[in-house]
Parts: sequence; structure tokens; C-alpha cells
Amino acid sequence: MTTTHNKKFSFGLWTVGWTAADPFGSATRPALDPWEYAEKLAELGAWGITFHDNDVYDFNASDAERADRIARLKAAADNAGLVIEMVTTNTFSHPIFKDGGLTNNDRSIRRFGLRKVLRNVDLAAELGATTFVMWGGREGAEYDSSKDLGAAMERYKEGLDTVAAYIKHQGYDLRIGLEPKPNEPRGDIFLPTIGHALGLIAELDNGDIVGLNPEVGHEQMANLNFTHGIAQALHADKLFHIDLNGQSGVKYDQDKAFGHGDLASAFFTVDLLENGFPNGGNRYDGALHFDYKPGRTEGMEGVWESARANIEMYMMLAEKAAAFRADPRTQELMAKASIPELGQSTLAEGESFEDFLADRSAFEDFDAEAAGAREYHFVELYQHAMRHLIG
Amino acid sequence: MTTTHNKKFSFGLWTVGWTAADPFGSATRPALDPWEYAEKLAELGAWGITFHDNDVYDFNASDAERADRIARLKAAADNAGLVIEMVTTNTFSHPIFKDGGLTNNDRSIRRFGLRKVLRNVDLAAELGATTFVMWGGREGAEYDSSKDLGAAMERYKEGLDTVAAYIKHQGYDLRIGLEPKPNEPRGDIFLPTIGHALGLIAELDNGDIVGLNPEVGHEQMANLNFTHGIAQALHADKLFHIDLNGQSGVKYDQDKAFGHGDLASAFFTVDLLENGFPNGGNRYDGALHFDYKPGRTEGMEGVWESARANIEMYMMLAEKAAAFRADPRTQELMAKASIPELGQSTLAEGESFEDFLADRSAFEDFDAEAAGAREYHFVELYQHAMRHLIG
Amino acid sequence: MTTTHNKKFSFGLWTVGWTAADPFGSATRPALDPWEYAEKLAELGAWGITFHDNDVYDFNASDAERADRIARLKAAADNAGLVIEMVTTNTFSHPIFKDGGLTNNDRSIRRFGLRKVLRNVDLAAELGATTFVMWGGREGAEYDSSKDLGAAMERYKEGLDTVAAYIKHQGYDLRIGLEPKPNEPRGDIFLPTIGHALGLIAELDNGDIVGLNPEVGHEQMANLNFTHGIAQALHADKLFHIDLNGQSGVKYDQDKAFGHGDLASAFFTVDLLENGFPNGGNRYDGALHFDYKPGRTEGMEGVWESARANIEMYMMLAEKAAAFRADPRTQELMAKASIPELGQSTLAEGESFEDFLADRSAFEDFDAEAAGAREYHFVELYQHAMRHLIG
Amino acid sequence: MTTTHNKKFSFGLWTVGWTAADPFGSATRPALDPWEYAEKLAELGAWGITFHDNDVYDFNASDAERADRIARLKAAADNAGLVIEMVTTNTFSHPIFKDGGLTNNDRSIRRFGLRKVLRNVDLAAELGATTFVMWGGREGAEYDSSKDLGAAMERYKEGLDTVAAYIKHQGYDLRIGLEPKPNEPRGDIFLPTIGHALGLIAELDNGDIVGLNPEVGHEQMANLNFTHGIAQALHADKLFHIDLNGQSGVKYDQDKAFGHGDLASAFFTVDLLENGFPNGGNRYDGALHFDYKPGRTEGMEGVWESARANIEMYMMLAEKAAAFRADPRTQELMAKASIPELGQSTLAEGESFEDFLADRSAFEDFDAEAAGAREYHFVELYQHAMRHLIG
Repeated sequence: MTTTHNKKFSFGLWTVGWTAADPFGSATRPALDPWEYAEKLAELGAWGITFHDNDVYDFNASDAERADRIARLKAAADNAGLVIEMVTTNTFSHPIFKDGGLTNNDRSIRRFGLRKVLRNVDLAAELGATTFVMWGGREGAEYDSSKDLGAAMERYKEGLDTVAAYIKHQGYDLRIGLEPKPNEPRGDIFLPTIGHALGLIAELDNGDIVGLNPEVGHEQMANLNFTHGIAQALHADKLFHIDLNGQSGVKYDQDKAFGHGDLASAFFTVDLLENGFPNGGNRYDGALHFDYKPGRTEGMEGVWESARANIEMYMMLAEKAAAFRADPRTQELMAKASIPELGQSTLAEGESFEDFLADRSAFEDFDAEAAGAREYHFVELYQHAMRHLIG
Repeated sequence: MTTTHNKKFSFGLWTVGWTAADPFGSATRPALDPWEYAEKLAELGAWGITFHDNDVYDFNASDAERADRIARLKAAADNAGLVIEMVTTNTFSHPIFKDGGLTNNDRSIRRFGLRKVLRNVDLAAELGATTFVMWGGREGAEYDSSKDLGAAMERYKEGLDTVAAYIKHQGYDLRIGLEPKPNEPRGDIFLPTIGHALGLIAELDNGDIVGLNPEVGHEQMANLNFTHGIAQALHADKLFHIDLNGQSGVKYDQDKAFGHGDLASAFFTVDLLENGFPNGGNRYDGALHFDYKPGRTEGMEGVWESARANIEMYMMLAEKAAAFRADPRTQELMAKASIPELGQSTLAEGESFEDFLADRSAFEDFDAEAAGAREYHFVELYQHAMRHLIG
Repeated sequence: MTTTHNKKFSFGLWTVGWTAADPFGSATRPALDPWEYAEKLAELGAWGITFHDNDVYDFNASDAERADRIARLKAAADNAGLVIEMVTTNTFSHPIFKDGGLTNNDRSIRRFGLRKVLRNVDLAAELGATTFVMWGGREGAEYDSSKDLGAAMERYKEGLDTVAAYIKHQGYDLRIGLEPKPNEPRGDIFLPTIGHALGLIAELDNGDIVGLNPEVGHEQMANLNFTHGIAQALHADKLFHIDLNGQSGVKYDQDKAFGHGDLASAFFTVDLLENGFPNGGNRYDGALHFDYKPGRTEGMEGVWESARANIEMYMMLAEKAAAFRADPRTQELMAKASIPELGQSTLAEGESFEDFLADRSAFEDFDAEAAGAREYHFVELYQHAMRHLIG
Repeated sequence: MTTTHNKKFSFGLWTVGWTAADPFGSATRPALDPWEYAEKLAELGAWGITFHDNDVYDFNASDAERADRIARLKAAADNAGLVIEMVTTNTFSHPIFKDGGLTNNDRSIRRFGLRKVLRNVDLAAELGATTFVMWGGREGAEYDSSKDLGAAMERYKEGLDTVAAYIKHQGYDLRIGLEPKPNEPRGDIFLPTIGHALGLIAELDNGDIVGLNPEVGHEQMANLNFTHGIAQALHADKLFHIDLNGQSGVKYDQDKAFGHGDLASAFFTVDLLENGFPNGGNRYDGALHFDYKPGRTEGMEGVWESARANIEMYMMLAEKAAAFRADPRTQELMAKASIPELGQSTLAEGESFEDFLADRSAFEDFDAEAAGAREYHFVELYQHAMRHLIG
């Protein structure tokens, strides 16, 4: 397979394939067949593609239609040298899922949803995908009275554990990536942030193969720092996949191209993905997956211009981040900020409570006023990053 | 001890004791001695009080001063029949903590911070507190470049595990309640939401005695549904303590009286605390702790009026919530919404993957169109709640 | 005409008529013909209905189809005793408007948009509407580079002035109500708040017949206090119409039923609409127009339950607000808060600069410390309002 | 006077002079005398300084102290070649202003506040300032019941008109710049955005000398696009002054250095300030005033590093913006986006309603489908801007 830029860039078929109907307007672009998008994405430098089941075949497709359309897509991907690196299930578009799939109040719908997911797990494995994303976009509520919130958590847990157990039972080489989102299309979505997903994963029996697929814009919709979020996931060894895009603040889900929202934050995200934590630790080596939407104002030329923009932004930021880290002045400022010192444990190796409590230099004799007056030069370090980013 | 209303209402000394200096103005009220607040809170119906070390004695207090002031406070609490149910450490006010305590880039400050915390753990145990809250208000950053985010998580983990291990080592009957907050006073605080705290707790060696102390306003500052948040914590058996107050949307930390922000949300919070999940499960039986600030416009009369408002709001909402749940029409609407059905497992007891996949009624023969058209009556159920709340 | 409850409740046909397609899912409800909604709304107690042109006939409808469908709607409204109090134009759904109508970069589209609006002005006048709402949902941008922002303001002004001049030229008894919104479907919409609309109206040649149609949720999407907003509009004698609905914080446009978001804010909005400013001044006497969407989880039963909820909430809140104002304790607390004193001018009648500067009691001899220590009892007054609301 | 870089950079004395006490912590830096800041700012390249009265002398200063400190500051500014370009009044720090100055419920406090403002108007004129900023930080409320909102608008209007009338009466060469802010320190501040201020200015008798002093972070706290905001003010010829700083989303007022928040937005702000609207129109030529706070983590070295960062960011962005505009590819993409066409009036010169309605090419014969399918290339244009910004 070809990998442009040696980066594992991938795109959801639903991204360039979005025909731009929104809550206040109808489609402004035609729908192509999924294999048509695949070819073009390969030309732009993509390494992989991803899709929801119903991006490729209709909810009501017959088995034959389904098989046929999957085969055509697979052939197109193979021809273009594209990996199908991730597959996901649509449990949000059809009216049946209006109160969710895994946490629908209606048990028969939960069973239907779970079956739809399992069917797609088989498909993901068959196509060689290594990540199975689960975005529970309809798992949630608009009205606090409409759910038993404890039971909802229990059903979510049951659903995720069942899918994970099935993957193990089948022996698939697949990991689940949960995709948090705070709201839209529900008023409050369960597992609204990276943190909440990490919290529920800890409750699972099969949590070892369940991790995160965080999306830039989704965390920013909760007014959170995306780089902080993925850092916590990475520290917990749970950053399985990532959705890169752009969002301009706390508002509806914009899905702009990567870097076309909070630019400085995108820079530090790329810096972490490419260069890791300053003192080492877990590294991300998964796909660089763009989950964006070409603006509704764009025609088909704009679709491809925007797809290209994602890759170009990532490449430009990666180059800047590499130079920032390599600059001796950066290292000097990091040292003045004591960043390397944060890599040292607070207690000494083998230091007991008795030792620690007996260390008068740590507390009784410590000069708190002097320590409170020390300089960190955080602003200068940030400004130095800005010099690299735009200088 | 007396328990007004049979509710375990408690107040932080720093709440009524806030002298109302804010970023743009100086104090508008005098500071009383801590024991003076205690007496008055008991009169208003409080069951307990709580405090940070430096609410009672200065950062630089001598051991003798410290002991004396603690003794006077304890005596006042005993006289007034007040429990000291929670103690916490101030690792945020003094300049030494300007880059945090447990995650400060400077190791000597981390050691100092940890010692300050451990000293206060001893105090908490000595005074009979059962919860030790840790709010890491300065653990965070304004600038993405200023921290090694992976190391920060590692140090946070080390710090929390050390405190928890010390509690066990000393044999104290204490549990730690982490208090998440998304921002203020730092631009981005680590463990910004309930979820992120649950995620880090899962990484701890001593996580069994570490849970949550969520605050209404803090989750709302991240635009999240507070009742959803505490429901997830409760489901995970991690709701150890709670901070009740009021916030009007995504802005600076307002700390208004409980119910004086998002009123309907406060109603459903009380409904969960008092009546539990509709289908049963974990219940909260801890303190009802008010962590609010009397508005800066208020004088000392206003301080007590606002303190009283917290209790009155809770009591009014509790009464309404009880009536809402007891109403047969509520039960009927819950049934029409299939809320009891969410309490049932999605798979049948003992149902294997083979059984489930073979159940054609669940998928192949399921009438998805009919299921998609079903009514849930969620709006009517909510409106019925509103009839109870304000009708 | 009949007026249930003596309140001028009206509904947009697009509210109950929303079939619940959203960015992540397809319609969950059938579309009825517009006249079918009208009949049912009358039964629920509506006094009036409103609509966009394309709620009644298709964008591409022939003149005959258009005339026929308008006639059928008018007949249904007349039969049901419903006023058609407001008409508005859809300049946002069709792809042609993807960059706006009045501020589209493309002049030919601006001309088309303006013609579509003028045609609808004629219709509004013909049907007896007194308000012509203009919501510029597509006037805006996602990308700061995509518009000449000064020229956009100039074109917006030209467009509004042209419509207003046309109304005067035709001698219609119509006033324009601008509807601000901060974002969605554009990333940033021009005239994002009540204030920005007031600002542009001040620039118009024909601003005398241009005012506001503020929507609860729209202002709340900008994190602003809705009651403050309409108070400023009312003070400027520009509150021509109002859109009542519910929103839960800064997120996508929820359009919940009125009162089903920030309940306490809804109470104070109703208090202002029903009871006016405490010290008198301009009063609102226009339609009480519900611009909401029945949740996507709702079926047709839920549609009508939710429509009814709007009216019921308003009536409940109006009753509470009346009692709050009539309560002598409220008057007493308002007096203690010096609210009546805010109705007095700061300078005495006829007081010159010389007089004012010579008044030593106002400054040199004024006891600022004493004045800074005064009580306002704002929390107690608010708590008293809460007693009325939920007590 | 010297003008480093030929730019009129100015700083508030309260910016570098902030000693970093915040709601959760005490000061981390010493306070210097105001003249000490002035000298250092001149070294960094500032052209001017600005201040609140109580940045220079205490609230309770005697006339002699006041005169002495003003004289020393003036001498220092003169020595350093610094202009005192703006003066403003502190009507927010002292407890007396806890419910506001011009809109305080208490008339005697309103009179005191107005006198304090007028006294400072004299000072501003005496020192040669040309702008008098009025930030009504305490004009507002936390509780909807605490104000008569109509009377508050009336008093605000009276207060502003009185100050403006006094300026005219005295013949001062001064203009008032209102500074909007949505919240903090009050829950809801009156005149929360640029728009609301424009709206109230339109109501004034002396509005001709009243305009705006918008602050980057304040508009962003209301989730609004700052460049859009100042564009509307500029179009209305009301952009009298500007406060440049940085904010990371909807949260407490951060006052970071300019460009250290939403970087891309800062770029487009500078582009507008430096290069004007693409099709011409009003230009800004006032001071480039930095209203920021050095982070609390910073010591005095960090204070000056952060002050310098503001200037460096502006200069870097100005250079990038100039190149972006000068690039022929930019002009080409702007043309493809029809941006020049937005500069043309929608109606032809002298086109009457009759002409316009008779133009079948504008409506009846217009090909709406073709127009709806046109390309704008907005994403490509934005991406091209990004290439200039970071490429």
C-alpha cells in the first residue's frame, strides 16, 4: 500500500460524502457512490478509509445488495491501495434509534441495535479493520425525567461488554474505540467526554480491548482542552484512534477541516501525536483520521479542496512542531519551566512515609515564600512556540 | 447531635465566611472567626460543617496557634451539636501553589504540597471527619506548552495514591472525594469533569477509597448535565460526597445558592439524591454539602438569608420530588416511556451469542419501521414533572 | 376571533409541522398539510398561526399551486377562528441561499432573495398579518476570510431598508421583526444578538418600522440573559414580536417547549411580559409566539402534548408571576433593595452641572464606607420569588 | 513622541501592574509605583499608556496625594516619550459600587459614581487623553429580580448622556468608548456585547461622541466572533478604541496576551485593523491598546516577557496579513468567492420598486438551481490564509 507522507491519513466516507443537508436546509451537493470517493481520496494522499455500514448500503438493503456494495467498495479500496482501517455502525439515523440503540428504553430496540452492531463487527473483521468505533450519538436524553440514568449506565455497560466479548469470542483482531460527545443530536449524550468514557471502560469486564476515539470538536463542544483530553487517554493507554477536525467554540457540531478552528490547540495536538510527551511515555501510532464535513457552501471542487486542507494543515503543523521541539531555545525554556522535573517522581525511590514525614527540608524548613516567588517563564515558552508556529 | 429536617446539611466555613473580594473588587464584608460561623449555621439547621486548613488558621500559623484555633472550632462545633464531616486542604491560595501542588513542575513544591495534605489528613481523622476532599484547583495550565501532560497525570496519580496509601497505613476511617472543575483559576484544570476523575481513579493502586465530590456549578461550567454526571458516579459506587450550589450557565464560577441557577436541573438532582434511580441501584446517603458564596452585594444579613436559602430550596425540591414520584400518573407515564424496561438486561439471562444471533425476532423479522414510530411521551412526562415542580 | 385564556398565543406552522429530520437522522413523523395543523392548534387554545412561505407551498410551486394552498390555509384559519398574525420568508433552506440572501456575495442571488422577500410582504399584508419576521439564518460565515464584513453590513442595511421602504410605499400596516441568532446553521451569523440588531436598526433610513423578534433560545445560545435582552429592546420601544421556547445552555438550537429549559429565567420573562417593569414604562402587548420543535423522540401524540405544554407553562408562570408581584412581602423586599429608587433620575430635575458639582453631599462629604456596607437583600428577594414559583 | 514600529501600541498600567491576586489566591508579585511601569513599557516599544484613577492614587487619597501622584506619572510619561492616550474611572472595586455606579439601585451611590466619573473626565482632558473608556463592570445583576431592567437602561442612558454632555460643555477633545462585557464580576452585565452598546448609544442625546472600546476576550466570553463585532462597530463609525488580549473560549475572563487565545481569529482581527475591509470603507486608526494580565504563574521577568509578547504577536500577524492581502492568489480566490461583488449595491443606482419588480431576470426567469450549485471556494480561501499565517 502507498502511504503519502508516511502518515496514516484516513477519511470517513461520510465526510467527503456529506451532501450538506442541515437542520435548516436541503442538500447542496450530489451523492456519489462510496467507491468514487475512495479513488479520489487515494489521489489526495490518504492511506485509509473508514465507514458506517449505512454509508455503503441502505438500512433496508437486502443481503445481496449489501454484499455487492461492500465488494465493490473493497475492490475500489484495494485498487487504490487504501486500507479499510476502521468500520463503525450507524445506530443513530433511522427513527428506530430515536431514543438510542444500546440504552433505548425499549428492550426490543436495544436487542435490534446490538444485533446491528455485531453484524458490523463481523464485517469489520472481514475487511481487515483493526478499530471498531462506537459513537453513541442517540444514547442520551433531552429531558432529565426520560431515563433511569443508573439503568442506562448499566445497559451501556452491558452493550459494550457484549460487543467486546463477541470480538474475543470470535478471535477478531479488533479493538473498540468509544467516541464521546457532549450533545447533539441529543440534548445530553451519555459518555459526554473522554473522561466519562474512561470511567465507564473501567467498569467493563472486557475493558482491555475498549479504548477511545476522541474527536477534536466534540471535546471542544464541552469547552475542554482537546490535547489535555487525549493526553489523559494516552497516559491510560487508551488512545486507540483519533478523529481530527475543526470547531470554533461551544456551538453546534461544525466538523470543519482540521486546524480550521482553534489553530494553536491543533498545533499542540499535532505536537503530542508526533513528538510524544517531553519526558517520554506512551506514544500514539494509530491512524490520523479526519472526521470533518466540507462546508455546505462548497461544491464538489470545494469538497476536494477541503479534504486536501486537512492533510496540508496536519503536515504544516507537524513540520512546525518538529522544529519547535528541536530548537535548543525550546529545551532551555522547558528547563527553566522545570518541565523535565515533572518527569521525576515526587517521592524518592523507596521513600517511606516515615522518611518523608521526617524530611524537614520538605516542609518545616522549606522556604515557601521563596518558592512562591520563582519564575516559570510559561508565557515566554508559549510565545516561543508561537514564533515557531507563525514566525 | 441535632439534625434539622433529618437531612445531613453541611456548610463549608469558607462559604458564609467569604468576605467577597473578587477579581475586580475588594471585600465587602468583615471576616468573623470560624467558630462564630459554626454557631450560626447550627441555628439555621445545619448538621455539619467542613473547612480547609487555612479557613481556620493562617498558612504561616505556629503549631500553637494552629492547635488553639482548631480546639476552639472543635469546641464550638461540639457545643452547637455540629459534626465536622469533611476536611480539605488549601493547596491553591498561597503563591507557592501557583503552578499546582501535586502536579507542580517543581518537585520541591510537590513535596511541600503533599506534606501539607498529609498533615491535614491527620487532622481530618482526629476531628472525626469521614471524607477528605481534594480539589486540585491549581493543577492545570493556561498554556499547552507549560506542562508535560503525561507526566502531570503520572504525578497526579502518584500524589493521590500516596494520600490514599497513607490513610490506609494510618488506619483512618476516611475516604477521598476528588472535586473536578474544568477551569478557574487555571485556564484548564486537570480532571476537569466527573468523568475524568473516574478515569484517573481507575488507574490508582488505592482507588478503592477514592471517589468523587462533584459540584453542581463545576460540571455546569463544562456545559454538562449535573444529574447525569452524579448518576454515572453513583452507578460506579463513587459518589462519596456532593457540593450543592447554583450556577447560571457557562461562565465564571458563581457559587450561587443551591437552586438559584438551573432550577429544573436542581429538581432532578434532588429527585435522584432523595428517591434514587427509578429501577433501584446504588443510593446516596452522604452529606448534603453546600459550597456556595453569598453574593458580593450582600451584607451579613444577606449572608444568613442566603445560607438559609440553600436549605429551604433543598427542602422545597425534596417535597416536590417525593410527590412527583408518588403520583400514579407519573408511574403511568414512566411506563408509557418504557422506563421500567430499561431496568431489564438486554440479553436474557444466560443467553449465549449463538442464541442471540439465532433469534430472528430480534433482527431479521423485527419491524423496524413500527418500532421507529412508537411514542415515548417524554415531553408529557417532563411537563408532568413541571406540574409538580411549579403547579 | 376567539382568544383562549385572553392570551394571544400563536404557533408557527413549522413547529408542530417539523417532521424531525436532524443532522444525524431522518424524519420520524409524517408531514401533514398546513391546514391540518391549524385546526388542531385552534383546539389547543391558539389565537393565531404564522408561517414561512415554503411551509405552505414548495419553493418551485407554480402561481396556481401557491394561490390554491394559501387559500386553503386561509380558509382553515378563518374556520378555526385563527389570526394569521405573522408571515416570514424562507431564505435559508434552498441551496441558492447557502451563502445568505440579503448578504450573499453573489449579487444575482441577493436580488433573487430580495424579490422573494418582497413577494411575501405582499402576501403578509394580504392575509392581514401585522408582523413580518426576518431571520437571516444564512447571513453569515464559517470562515473569517469569506466575507467583506463591512460590505456585508452595508448590504444587510440596504436589504432591510428596501423591504421597509417597500412596506411604506405600499401603505401596508406591517412592521418588521428582526430575529437575531448567534450561530447555526452558519458558524457566525450576522446580527448575532438583540443588541447587534438594535445597533443596525439605528443605521436604517426606515428603522421606525423595524424592530425585534427575539427568541429565548437564540439569546441563550450566546450565553446571554434573555430577560435582560428583551428589556433593552422594550426600553428602546423595539420589542415588536417574541419567540418563546426552551434551550438548555450553550449548544445546538434545541427549540424545546417554553419553560423546558431555564425555568427560572422563563418565569422572569413571563413576569416582564405580563407585569411590565416595576417602575412602569413600555409594555409588550404583541403575540405570544411559540417557536419550538417537538422532540424527535415524539410521535404525533407527543407533538400535541408538547404544543399544549407551551401554553400550560406560560399560563402557570403567569399565575405565579402575578401572585409574586401582588404579594406585600415582595413589595417590601423590593423597597429594601431600593428598586423603586432606580426609577428616579440620578440628577434632580433641572439640576445643572454647576449645581451637581457643587453638591458636596454627593461626593466630598459622602460616606462611601457606609454606603458600601449597605444591605440590598437581593438573595432574599430572589428566594422569595422562588417561594412563589415552586412553593 | 516616539512610535516604535510606527504602531500606536499602548498598555494599561493595571496590566503589567496586576499583582495576580485572583478569586482563589493571593498576590504573587509586588506592586510597583505606576511611573515605574511607564518607563519599562516605553523601553518595550509602547507609544502610550492608560490608567484608571485608582491605578495611580487610592480611592481615599487626599487631593494633595492625588495631585502629586498624577504629576509624577505625567513626568515619567513625558520623560519616556509616552502619550497618555486614554483614561478611565474605576467604578467597580470599592464596595460602594457593589451594585454598580450609574445603575446602582441606590440613587446616592449613582450620584457619587457620576461625580467620580466627571472628576476623571477633567483629569483625562488635562492629561491630553482623547479617549475616555467607560466599562460598567458592576452595572448588572446576578438575580433577575434585583433590578428594574427598564429603569436600569434609563439610568444608564442618563449617566452616559450626562458624561457626554459634560465633555461637550467643557469643550474637551474627548470621546467616550463603552466597553461591553457579558459577565464577571456580575452574573449578567448590562451592555453585554458590542451590539447592545451600539443599541443604547442610538438612544442617547449625545451619542455622537460615544462609541465603542471592544475587548477581544469580552466578546469571546459571549461566544461571539470578535472580528465580526468590531466590523459592525467600524461600519457604524463607532470603533473609537480597542482592547487587544487573548481568551481561550467561554470561561472566566483570562486576559491572556494578544494572540495567545484564538490565534486565527487574532490574525483576521489584525488583518481588518491594518488592511481594512476588502472593498474599502471606514478604517481604524486609533490606539492598539493591550488590556491583558500577565499570568499568575509569572514573576516580574514573566511580566515583561508577556508584555513584549503582545507587541511581537501583533507585529508578526500584521506582517502575515499584509502578505496575505498582497498575494495575487488571494485576490484570485476572493474574486472566485465573489467578495468584490459584495461591495456592489443589490439594487442598481436609481432602480425603483417598479423597475426591480419588473426585472424577470431577477426572479421569474432566474435559474435558482444553477445559482444554488455555484462554487464559492471559501475553504480554499481560508486554507490559503492559513498558508500565509503558518506556512
